[in-house]
Amino acid sequence: MNQTIETLLQHRSIRSFTDERLTKEEIHTIVEAAQMASTSSYMQAYTIMGITDEEKKAELAQITGQDYVQNNGHLFIFCADLHRHQVKATDTEKEEMIANIENTEHLLVSAIDATLAAQNGAIAAESMGLGMCYIGSIRNNISRVDELLNLPQHVIPLFGMVVGHPKSKPEQKPRIPQEGIYFENEYKTDQSKALDQFDNKIKAYYESRSQNARKDTWTDQMIRRFSKPMRMDVTTHVQQKGLNKR
Amino acid sequence: MNQTIETLLQHRSIRSFTDERLTKEEIHTIVEAAQMASTSSYMQAYTIMGITDEEKKAELAQITGQDYVQNNGHLFIFCADLHRHQVKATDTEKEEMIANIENTEHLLVSAIDATLAAQNGAIAAESMGLGMCYIGSIRNNISRVDELLNLPQHVIPLFGMVVGHPKSKPEQKPRIPQEGIYFENEYKTDQSKALDQFDNKIKAYYESRSQNARKDTWTDQMIRRFSKPMRMDVTTHVQQKGLNKR
Repeated sequence: MNQTIETLLQHRSIRSFTDERLTKEEIHTIVEAAQMASTSSYMQAYTIMGITDEEKKAELAQITGQDYVQNNGHLFIFCADLHRHQVKATDTEKEEMIANIENTEHLLVSAIDATLAAQNGAIAAESMGLGMCYIGSIRNNISRVDELLNLPQHVIPLFGMVVGHPKSKPEQKPRIPQEGIYFENEYKTDQSKALDQFDNKIKAYYESRSQNARKDTWTDQMIRRFSKPMRMDVTTHVQQKGLNKR
Repeated sequence: MNQTIETLLQHRSIRSFTDERLTKEEIHTIVEAAQMASTSSYMQAYTIMGITDEEKKAELAQITGQDYVQNNGHLFIFCADLHRHQVKATDTEKEEMIANIENTEHLLVSAIDATLAAQNGAIAAESMGLGMCYIGSIRNNISRVDELLNLPQHVIPLFGMVVGHPKSKPEQKPRIPQEGIYFENEYKTDQSKALDQFDNKIKAYYESRSQNARKDTWTDQMIRRFSKPMRMDVTTHVQQKGLNKR
């Protein structure tokens, strides 16, 4: 196994960091690696924000409910961005572009582009011995995050990424068995066996782990999670920003 | 610079492969690495398809207009998947889950989860000396790809990924300068300078490259691309599959 695959397989989300800030060089390398990810038809349809302003970080920590959004080596926010492509366009050209800017296809394109970049950044960070964690909970109040970052039309914040020097090394969380997530040629709707197997593993994992031990299975956890409507306002926000409208 | 960052920075999309197929072990490692990527609230909201059926590959090559979709070491298709979470749910529970399954938030969650996994898989492949290329053009006919893979409700194909032994090593494509894509604390709407700089670079790149030399800039290319409405049917397809409906 090579070093890179070892890094990939060793991943765990880090939620506790020392006070050490990332250096300018480290930030530069993470962004550089992020940018070298593949991008749909060369669109580079994303923007990476770095948040250093302490007041903004404090408010983001409050929105996400996570103190490590404030206390970390560096806080990134990855945005889907279809503004950049219009900067040099005339008004007539902008009108011609709007059907694509506003459709679901390009919401997907920009979300995919941002995520490819983010994951390259995450791996670059981990390969340097840093730890990281994605922060989907910035979407707890997506409109306020939009205001904080002063985002124009056709740009939406997708998720944060905290990076820093790890203060702890949590256990790795098991994954669904490969036969439950990788199918050849045809989708396999009967996933009961793989999910039972996974639930047994997860039950043992939750009972045995050193912190926050509990009785639970993955399927129960998912059913509970999905049963409470959450972030229903993301729909409206995205449309108000001129994306996913048609 | 460590080996992993070198791999990330050396990326170029490979569109021409030898006849050598990936081994079972290579496919296993790519999927294993993919699964170890971060996942939103442990949802693992994606499925990875491997396409080995020659007839399906031929039709996918025709849909995408790319012969390397047929001729490669292995063809993956990454799908956003919110079906799995309902497999063990009762009908009453399914009813309670539907508001989340159907909202834009969870279309984003599943697209992001699938993409994080894919990029881990891509990097694992590249670290083994393999080449890869994403195939967004499976969305040229998303409904037909859905049929070919026999996908249930709440699962949509996002993009393909071809992997194989590279037959050529194309030039790297430059990226937007860091100051045009990475902003601290506040979004910078005035991107003219960075884009001018990038356009000059791209002009030189297109004029000088060994294959398909042409006169073009990035901003012109984007304006042209966005001016022709494309894949407008993705919206309807996604909604017919029960996603992004509210």
